[in-house]
Amino acid sequence: MLLRFTKMHGLGNDFAVIDLVTQHARISAEQVRRLADRHFGIGFDQMLIVEPPQNPEVDFRYRIFNADGSEVEQCGNGARCFARFVRDKKLTHKDRIRVETSSGVIELQLVGNKEVRVNMGVPMLEPAAIPFQADARQATYELDLERQALTLSAVSMGNPHAVLLVEDVDSAPVLELGPRLEHHPRFPQRCNVGFLQIINRREARLRVFERGVGETLACGTGACAALVAGRLRGLLDEEVTMQLPGGTLKLAWKGDNQPVIMTGPATRVYEGQIRL
Amino acid sequence: MLLRFTKMHGLGNDFAVIDLVTQHARISAEQVRRLADRHFGIGFDQMLIVEPPQNPEVDFRYRIFNADGSEVEQCGNGARCFARFVRDKKLTHKDRIRVETSSGVIELQLVGNKEVRVNMGVPMLEPAAIPFQADARQATYELDLERQALTLSAVSMGNPHAVLLVEDVDSAPVLELGPRLEHHPRFPQRCNVGFLQIINRREARLRVFERGVGETLACGTGACAALVAGRLRGLLDEEVTMQLPGGTLKLAWKGDNQPVIMTGPATRVYEGQIRL
Repeated sequence: MLLRFTKMHGLGNDFAVIDLVTQHARISAEQVRRLADRHFGIGFDQMLIVEPPQNPEVDFRYRIFNADGSEVEQCGNGARCFARFVRDKKLTHKDRIRVETSSGVIELQLVGNKEVRVNMGVPMLEPAAIPFQADARQATYELDLERQALTLSAVSMGNPHAVLLVEDVDSAPVLELGPRLEHHPRFPQRCNVGFLQIINRREARLRVFERGVGETLACGTGACAALVAGRLRGLLDEEVTMQLPGGTLKLAWKGDNQPVIMTGPATRVYEGQIRL
Repeated sequence: MLLRFTKMHGLGNDFAVIDLVTQHARISAEQVRRLADRHFGIGFDQMLIVEPPQNPEVDFRYRIFNADGSEVEQCGNGARCFARFVRDKKLTHKDRIRVETSSGVIELQLVGNKEVRVNMGVPMLEPAAIPFQADARQATYELDLERQALTLSAVSMGNPHAVLLVEDVDSAPVLELGPRLEHHPRFPQRCNVGFLQIINRREARLRVFERGVGETLACGTGACAALVAGRLRGLLDEEVTMQLPGGTLKLAWKGDNQPVIMTGPATRVYEGQIRL
């Protein structure tokens, strides 16, 4: 069969988005892997599947598959592209879209022509919930890494993040420290590692070494974790502009027990048709 | 404007192929670079442009642009995809297609449904023509690489190749020796480095470290140079099957002053439309 898809990206995190509301197909994990290949297939970080809802309270069901064919729960950049896609394709006319994901219902809001706002959930700061080995919750922790003493914050946005402050992200030792911190024994489920540079109380820069992936252009949950870490240290205001290598996100967090709100772009690249 | 393109690959060497016979567009080097990006654009190794001929003796004009926007002269994998494309799109009904390229006229032949035969030209073996620093043409040369004595053949297929014999390509030191041989002073224009494993007189395996690129899935000129090197050493017959990491090519070379003939697949992946 001939399958229509749309190639999109959110700050360089790229997706093949597939409408299974008006098309009917079954896509196996093996097919996802083949299609994800950048030389032999379409090439993408994740495949986003848009389906009719199973639950009548929501507008769509939305599933995310990694390039290795495994299904994942959350992707902030993907959620923005999903919302843009269902509007561009006229699958909905709403500005607020309620979506069923494998990790629960989320609400997405279209903002102007190009941006989408996503409720990224409430950050978890209790060590056991992250998980991070520590006696009690603190704004920062000291951690030994092969004779080096590092100061970091630990935050879960559904996935565990270590956030370090640096003077300058351009010269930060992302590729040297990232993999070693990812596998540090105090993060029993490993972690994503953020390198945060504060420009002023409303602007920051960030590079993220993603767990199991390496450095990426734009990690949405990493940006949220970095805002939380900066606010726990008293260095950032409620609303912050975060510059990542792939582009800029606007983030807001009022404080404990409040969700992080992320606003950013979703870009359509091309329309495609592929024989499955 | 909305530009139609076809994504294709030849053994994993991948292309956006653009019909500028029935479409009208000007594509700048800057646009090629943007479109080549695998996260923000279409993503490809090269863009192939199909144009009407300027010379009435040929069927098409065909131009090749690297991902950095520069125009290049030859690409064996691209030539196969070009031929498949003009037939699939019904831009011609011929089985033998004469094409004007920036390096002269070439003839391509469709073989069955999936394969294309390309005349890759006459290999040059005189050291000055490769260029390689040596007193006289030989089947093999000894070369010193930081206290190590290496035996290699030197062949030009329009671009310079060093070819080394190895016991097993899987364990060959491609990434270690490749970059050092590429920049060896006896190759004043640098070189591509092939690691050739002879299975029997009609079968061989090959990995290639491409000049300025690194290891690739399938280097067409490298496969031709490897056949020539194997025949100069008396180890291969006229017709050989060459296994590369991206797939298999059939190659034939009768000997001195004869062209190398390459036959291999060209695969269509998807059809796309992008706004320029």
